[in-house]
Amino acid sequence: MNIVAGVKRVLVGRRLANAQLGETLLPKRLALPVFASDALSSVAYAPDEILITLSFAGMTGYLFSWQIGLAVGFVIAVVVLSYRQTVRAYPTGGGDYEVASANLGNHAALTVASALLVDYVLTVAVSVSSGMANAKALIPWIDGREVVLAVVVIALLALANLRGLRESGGLFAWPTYIFMFSMLGMIVVGFFRVLVLGQPLRSETADLLVRAPDGSLTAGGWLLIAVVARAFSSGCAALTGVEAIANGVPAFRPPKSRNAAIVLAALGGIAISMFLGIVILANLTGVRLIDELTGTHYVTADGTTVHEQAPTVTGQLARTIFGGWFPPGLYVVVIATMAILFLAANTAFNGFPSLASILAKDGFLPRQLHTRGDRLAYSNGIIALAVAAIGLVIAFQASVTALIQLYVVGVFISFTVGQAGMIQHWTTALRTELDRGERRRMQRARVINVIGAACTGTVLIIVLISKFTHGAWLALLAMAVLYVGMISVRSHYNRVRDELAMHGGTDRILPSRVRAVVLVQQVNRPTAKAIAYAKASRATSLAGVTVAVDDDETREMVAAWDKEDFGIPLRVIASPYREITQPFLRYVSELRTENPRDVVAVYIPDFIVGRWWERFLHNQTSRLIRDKLDLMKGVMVISVPYQLSSALRKHDPARR
Amino acid sequence: MNIVAGVKRVLVGRRLANAQLGETLLPKRLALPVFASDALSSVAYAPDEILITLSFAGMTGYLFSWQIGLAVGFVIAVVVLSYRQTVRAYPTGGGDYEVASANLGNHAALTVASALLVDYVLTVAVSVSSGMANAKALIPWIDGREVVLAVVVIALLALANLRGLRESGGLFAWPTYIFMFSMLGMIVVGFFRVLVLGQPLRSETADLLVRAPDGSLTAGGWLLIAVVARAFSSGCAALTGVEAIANGVPAFRPPKSRNAAIVLAALGGIAISMFLGIVILANLTGVRLIDELTGTHYVTADGTTVHEQAPTVTGQLARTIFGGWFPPGLYVVVIATMAILFLAANTAFNGFPSLASILAKDGFLPRQLHTRGDRLAYSNGIIALAVAAIGLVIAFQASVTALIQLYVVGVFISFTVGQAGMIQHWTTALRTELDRGERRRMQRARVINVIGAACTGTVLIIVLISKFTHGAWLALLAMAVLYVGMISVRSHYNRVRDELAMHGGTDRILPSRVRAVVLVQQVNRPTAKAIAYAKASRATSLAGVTVAVDDDETREMVAAWDKEDFGIPLRVIASPYREITQPFLRYVSELRTENPRDVVAVYIPDFIVGRWWERFLHNQTSRLIRDKLDLMKGVMVISVPYQLSSALRKHDPARR
Repeated sequence: MNIVAGVKRVLVGRRLANAQLGETLLPKRLALPVFASDALSSVAYAPDEILITLSFAGMTGYLFSWQIGLAVGFVIAVVVLSYRQTVRAYPTGGGDYEVASANLGNHAALTVASALLVDYVLTVAVSVSSGMANAKALIPWIDGREVVLAVVVIALLALANLRGLRESGGLFAWPTYIFMFSMLGMIVVGFFRVLVLGQPLRSETADLLVRAPDGSLTAGGWLLIAVVARAFSSGCAALTGVEAIANGVPAFRPPKSRNAAIVLAALGGIAISMFLGIVILANLTGVRLIDELTGTHYVTADGTTVHEQAPTVTGQLARTIFGGWFPPGLYVVVIATMAILFLAANTAFNGFPSLASILAKDGFLPRQLHTRGDRLAYSNGIIALAVAAIGLVIAFQASVTALIQLYVVGVFISFTVGQAGMIQHWTTALRTELDRGERRRMQRARVINVIGAACTGTVLIIVLISKFTHGAWLALLAMAVLYVGMISVRSHYNRVRDELAMHGGTDRILPSRVRAVVLVQQVNRPTAKAIAYAKASRATSLAGVTVAVDDDETREMVAAWDKEDFGIPLRVIASPYREITQPFLRYVSELRTENPRDVVAVYIPDFIVGRWWERFLHNQTSRLIRDKLDLMKGVMVISVPYQLSSALRKHDPARR
Repeated sequence: MNIVAGVKRVLVGRRLANAQLGETLLPKRLALPVFASDALSSVAYAPDEILITLSFAGMTGYLFSWQIGLAVGFVIAVVVLSYRQTVRAYPTGGGDYEVASANLGNHAALTVASALLVDYVLTVAVSVSSGMANAKALIPWIDGREVVLAVVVIALLALANLRGLRESGGLFAWPTYIFMFSMLGMIVVGFFRVLVLGQPLRSETADLLVRAPDGSLTAGGWLLIAVVARAFSSGCAALTGVEAIANGVPAFRPPKSRNAAIVLAALGGIAISMFLGIVILANLTGVRLIDELTGTHYVTADGTTVHEQAPTVTGQLARTIFGGWFPPGLYVVVIATMAILFLAANTAFNGFPSLASILAKDGFLPRQLHTRGDRLAYSNGIIALAVAAIGLVIAFQASVTALIQLYVVGVFISFTVGQAGMIQHWTTALRTELDRGERRRMQRARVINVIGAACTGTVLIIVLISKFTHGAWLALLAMAVLYVGMISVRSHYNRVRDELAMHGGTDRILPSRVRAVVLVQQVNRPTAKAIAYAKASRATSLAGVTVAVDDDETREMVAAWDKEDFGIPLRVIASPYREITQPFLRYVSELRTENPRDVVAVYIPDFIVGRWWERFLHNQTSRLIRDKLDLMKGVMVISVPYQLSSALRKHDPARR
């Protein structure tokens, strides 16, 4: 085994055969952390974004934080109930894409697919950026290094996922459970201290006032409505990731649908408790957040401007509830929050490649994305996702508030189209179903999906209106580009398939003879090898051909040729412009014209080097000639590779 | 002619045959502007750098500006006289590189070559950056846009040079002459007004005082000596470009040596007059320059700090001498200065590719650099130079003062080694020369070169000591990297040549038979074409081979194969890991093992697409397989290209 292959084995792990695929199915206790970390982790930034957006209305805005929290919690409940219908009806996975494809056709399916692909990239970018922001509450050293660190984390996640799905589950289960219990623990302790012990807990920002960008402390009218709508839209980031389970049903142990529905219900319950708990506790302890980039800022009671960024909501709550009273709680909450945000990014690393693979199989994306790597993971998709997410993190400087503006729109497009597809699904099913109990069950499911579609559709409209100019347009543009790209790829594949299809008799006219030509640039062992192979192939005619660029060199070469006595003629082509490519191509083209029913076989001696930089030193002309010969009809190009010892040392295929 | 070729013709011009090369030789009146613009243009920044460096010693420094000017003028005279010996002794060009190579061996020659290559890149970067700085005196809009504009100028110069040498001469002669006459005119007018008319001309910075970085107005002792030494080193930038003529002798019309020597003498006279004229006029009119980056600054007489950058020396002199009195003179001087600086960069575009080509011919650089483009210019070298210079301009933000620290060291390494080589040349020649008159001439030439070597060697030591930590180390490092790189490339080529050389009988064992295999991924027209060509080649055995990755797809494919009835067997290889590459390679490897004396011919159907992005959608697996087959012994790889209609539309080689 050579070094590269060895390193690959160590980093990526032992490879798995087709038959081993069953072993990678997930039990419920592992499926929950793998698929739920995205949805749960949103509680680490969704409340922050609600408060940050509300700061645009100065102090007035905060009056609405708990109502917005309740509204978002309601939407989560509706969406979870709707998805339970989906996983029951479509146990083969594919989620909204499959639902839209089966019930609403290709265009709806591609709309969902574009939205989901963009959102997977955003999930990685937002989660990792938010992880950095949360970690800052404990490790101030991160400040100013967020971008580089986020890029490193994404790269490490990609590597972990190239190792395969099940080990991801095992590796990632503990932090998710620790997060869940520490977060719920913090909420319980918080409520206990405030409501039962009656302690007046105040967050570190509770005594600060917040000024809107225009300098005012209060706002009203349309501005207030717009700010509340946008805060609700940002808060809906809490819903991102709920679809992961629906897309991942095939990875569950049987009974797949039932297990997925159970996990989904558990996820919904936990997510809503956490989200509402945090929003209400933030309200009780007076957490206030600002966004310096957009011009909101803190002032003290006497009107002095405070130039400081406060920690995230989770960070402030952990400090307020545990700090001083039970410090280990503070550390556990902050570290677990950072960890789950990174794991949320991992959800996308499960979802994106599997969706890309489905799309590639349907011909909407390049076929490489459907090829499984030797670790059963969709390596190409993982790499594409990591590259795109790293690009976003760099472009938006790892700012969660900037990234979140792009985020929610895609999720709700996918929700709404998916629910609409489910309505169609039940309507179609009801046409043929006769069993009364079954019909009642279907009708009830349809009602749930109608409510789901109406609810998510309404949220989508709110999100589009309130966020379009703030960044949602960019996400929509990316989706449109993906959509058009996928349509083009598919139509290209179809066109090519039609053009390449067999048309019976006309394809079967055999060329009568082979005219062989060996490209000679020097008289050396690769050339001798090419001539030997060409002779073994016993063509109708065989000649060496060289292009005379430099008179002295050509004379020496002809002398060497005569001395070796290869037994075939050498044709020397004049080249007044000192080019090699064009005269040689003209020669081949003439040979074709003289023998139109024959095929021309061009033998090119090629020597294979071992080190990457050696490639720049050799074979440049051969490469150019080969590219041009590929465009000529009735020509085949034979490379006769001559392996230099350095190449054999480096890559011995027999020793792989 | 297709579009790409058409655009290339328009941009690069009609191509030239070998025999037309004579036409591109330069008469003296064109050789002067082509080869002298670099040396002449240095007067636009060398005086500035003297004054800027002197500002480190506060007001004391300026007392020494005219002595430094005289010293630099003396060095120019010595170097020009020395080079006249070189062009006489070496009419074939190559300059210091050829001299060092012929007299001092490979290592000295490579030292010179590394120094020259680095300096050509610096010439482009410094000249274009200085052009921007000078233009600012007239066009303040440039301020803050220097980097982008400099990059654009370098790109345009590269394009102009891809059009070929002679047109460069014609295109560039006028601005050089305008620069020479306007600059000399300005100097004459200046002296006339001051000395004859007795007008008290004062530059715009004459009434300002200059403070050293420590805040003092005067300095003495070691600091003063160090500052003066460094100012002299920076002033020696005026010598850069003098070697261009020695390197360019072959481009002169015969008698080449004589004409080159005449042009060299003219160049020396003009350069010294201009340089001394400007330094003395700057002294008379009280021009003072600072460098904000290093902490020197202006103060007024009452001690107030002035936060302003002044124009370049040329700009200030033009304003003082012509401004108000004869404004057109101001415009002509500034514009011509900018123009000649860009043309100076052009000198490097003549020198670098021709040196790179000589080095490539000697095996020290990749062979592509020796291949002439179809416009007789060394296209690859031109492109390499432009890319490197653009990199430097961006890295140093187009700051002349920062770039100049790297600049002079290479020039003087090349001068000193070249002069040492000339001493050796005359010593060798004197051993065999018997004619008394000729011996006397040679001895006189040797004395001149000894003086030249001593003088340039002394300057080199001063430059190294005074500038090492200011940036010269970086230039030295680049030269060392180039040096080691060139040694490695040459030893690689030698190793490969030895390994590939013919060894008589052992190379001539013919493989007895050909075992042919067609890689089948789908049953379509490219596959049918590959099978037809393989059949025409009449191999000993022929079979189609496919790797079964997906059971359903394989079943369909086998059915299609049977229906087509190609008349050859199809072997299906199982692939438990769903890989295509490894199982196929194993099959080929086994075929080899079973028939050790035969050669295996692998036919790969390849379809050729027309648009660049379509490449990503096809042939990925074939490409991978081909790369791996290249590493197996006893295998030849035959691509049978099938051109899609889009490819034929785009690239019809017959219509080129």
